[in-house]
Amino acid sequence: MAEWADLGVTADPGRVHTEGRMVRATLEDARDRVADLFGVRPRQVVLTSGGTEAVNSAVWGVLAGEPRVPVACAAVEHSAVREASARHGTIVEVDVDGRGRITGAAVGEAIERSAVVHGRTPVLVHCQVANHEVGTLQDVTGVVDRCREAGVPVHVDAVAAAGHVPLDLEALGADLVSVSSHKMGGPAGMGALIVRRGLRIDPLLVGGEQERGRRAGLEDVAAAVGFGAAAAALAEPGRIGAEAAAAHEATGRLLDAALSVDGVLPYGDVTDRVPHIVCLGVTGVEAEPVVLGLDQAGVAVHSGSSCSSESLEPSPVLLAMGVDGERSLRLSVGWSTTDADVDAFVGAFADVVARLRDLRG
Amino acid sequence: MAEWADLGVTADPGRVHTEGRMVRATLEDARDRVADLFGVRPRQVVLTSGGTEAVNSAVWGVLAGEPRVPVACAAVEHSAVREASARHGTIVEVDVDGRGRITGAAVGEAIERSAVVHGRTPVLVHCQVANHEVGTLQDVTGVVDRCREAGVPVHVDAVAAAGHVPLDLEALGADLVSVSSHKMGGPAGMGALIVRRGLRIDPLLVGGEQERGRRAGLEDVAAAVGFGAAAAALAEPGRIGAEAAAAHEATGRLLDAALSVDGVLPYGDVTDRVPHIVCLGVTGVEAEPVVLGLDQAGVAVHSGSSCSSESLEPSPVLLAMGVDGERSLRLSVGWSTTDADVDAFVGAFADVVARLRDLRG
Repeated sequence: MAEWADLGVTADPGRVHTEGRMVRATLEDARDRVADLFGVRPRQVVLTSGGTEAVNSAVWGVLAGEPRVPVACAAVEHSAVREASARHGTIVEVDVDGRGRITGAAVGEAIERSAVVHGRTPVLVHCQVANHEVGTLQDVTGVVDRCREAGVPVHVDAVAAAGHVPLDLEALGADLVSVSSHKMGGPAGMGALIVRRGLRIDPLLVGGEQERGRRAGLEDVAAAVGFGAAAAALAEPGRIGAEAAAAHEATGRLLDAALSVDGVLPYGDVTDRVPHIVCLGVTGVEAEPVVLGLDQAGVAVHSGSSCSSESLEPSPVLLAMGVDGERSLRLSVGWSTTDADVDAFVGAFADVVARLRDLRG
Repeated sequence: MAEWADLGVTADPGRVHTEGRMVRATLEDARDRVADLFGVRPRQVVLTSGGTEAVNSAVWGVLAGEPRVPVACAAVEHSAVREASARHGTIVEVDVDGRGRITGAAVGEAIERSAVVHGRTPVLVHCQVANHEVGTLQDVTGVVDRCREAGVPVHVDAVAAAGHVPLDLEALGADLVSVSSHKMGGPAGMGALIVRRGLRIDPLLVGGEQERGRRAGLEDVAAAVGFGAAAAALAEPGRIGAEAAAAHEATGRLLDAALSVDGVLPYGDVTDRVPHIVCLGVTGVEAEPVVLGLDQAGVAVHSGSSCSSESLEPSPVLLAMGVDGERSLRLSVGWSTTDADVDAFVGAFADVVARLRDLRG
């Protein structure tokens, strides 16, 4: 991105002059890299301003013009998926178990229930690859297969998983897949909606022919360059596996330290999860003082969902799993996490919790 | 932006940990600068991924849940304004004259016509500050005043004008104003919807509480920093005036050179226009070969609207003005334009046109 900025070419990639064609070539190179990582064709990749726009575009793209149609969606899906579906359609709940898992069977049951309750199968089914709060890996292949059997389009929210586990989207066969650049080491303000070949969607943003008419607005080429660079790095042979192994090692140490404290519980599936996320319940203390106590020790963690920290509602993900939605701590690691970062948590966590419990005691 | 990138702090500004609060402070500082340039309060500024998203959000924000309601809109508005309005509402045309001008009187007539034809006044009126293709400055104050008299909300598309002419949005009193960062020297992928105090709008992107619940999705802080820097530069005393004088001088030279060629006509209002845009009709030759001929001389110009070069339709702006919509050349200058750039056009234009006419002759 710095190299691209230094070049100083900021023309509109839709133009036929030399500068426009240079920018177009750079943009398409970035798109190729993203497509390559996920095993799809470049023209399937619609660049967006991030995961949230990708998800909103997926829902609008399928539902546009069909108000209040049924959409099957588990309560553990991200708030973007839930809220976009609820505003344009009517949600048909997909059941999850105590670890927040979505299965093909549960989706099949929801499809049948929709036919009974709403007189028709859902116009869209959502299934995340991994849960964004607890890390649980979903049976996304089972869900997609079940949807294809039923002839129901499926949107896969891969935001929490992309770049952290291998994803072959061509083999998966979903209709729409959302990914976010910043969740995989690229810049914020960039993401993609990946569209199955042959599927036409109604664009959420209109007023320009960019992205083959699927997303209007001048392209953010600098951010696309960063997204492409992140994708290219992750596409190197062995790279995702090596990062996953390091993340597993780090989150394993975090979990071991946390679970050695009385009254700390793991949420979600501790084994079958994305390598970089774990979630804890800490009984007897509020989450926010724990976050602030760890912050003083130089450790940045958070409670609740991404995108929901400004709201005071309990986590709907945890409520759906039947656990305490008001006292969760989400720990995540990334490519920049060091052993010293993990050591800082391991050294501070028990003390922070003990001090807060003493204050209440 | 480079300084911010070098800091390497990429936390979520919605978080309470130290890194989150650092990013939040930076984001709010950028927002303050944008607000300051336009004379509004920071909380009125909703950062978006660009002008197109701002426009789409303005239309959705007012029309959500009210299908097929009348929206008053001139044919010279940007395709984002037109298409977003047409998909969610029913367009009531506002007449323009041969220079593409929108007046308060024409808007008043459209409001009355809407009451007769649709049984109600428009739920929204659009008025651009300046036309994006021909540069004509609109009577935006007259239009906003007329809308306030009629009690009709008004959206002002300031994308083509912001940063090029002084804009005091508090004094203007519009309900919604769209601006774009890259049109005023900031990065692409960033813009703002400026919302009148007290006006509640339904968010286009849902699923997070960012931007006070008016635009979901992790904030693009790096781009906001660039937008803020551009706004701060333009807010320096005398800066817009100095840039406008230089742009007037440059576009004046471009116009003089172009109009000295037979069969070249000025489109739009050559005097009452934004300083950085002029538009020409060139009889007897297609626009694209002129663009390519000038490109060989090192000059990047374009034909037709921003955002529409991938479509082959004639410019609806020019059609509405009653001029030849298929043969326009749009010349624009910016802060990076040099005298040598202007010289290159002046030296090449007549030859390029003569050569193309000879080929046809």
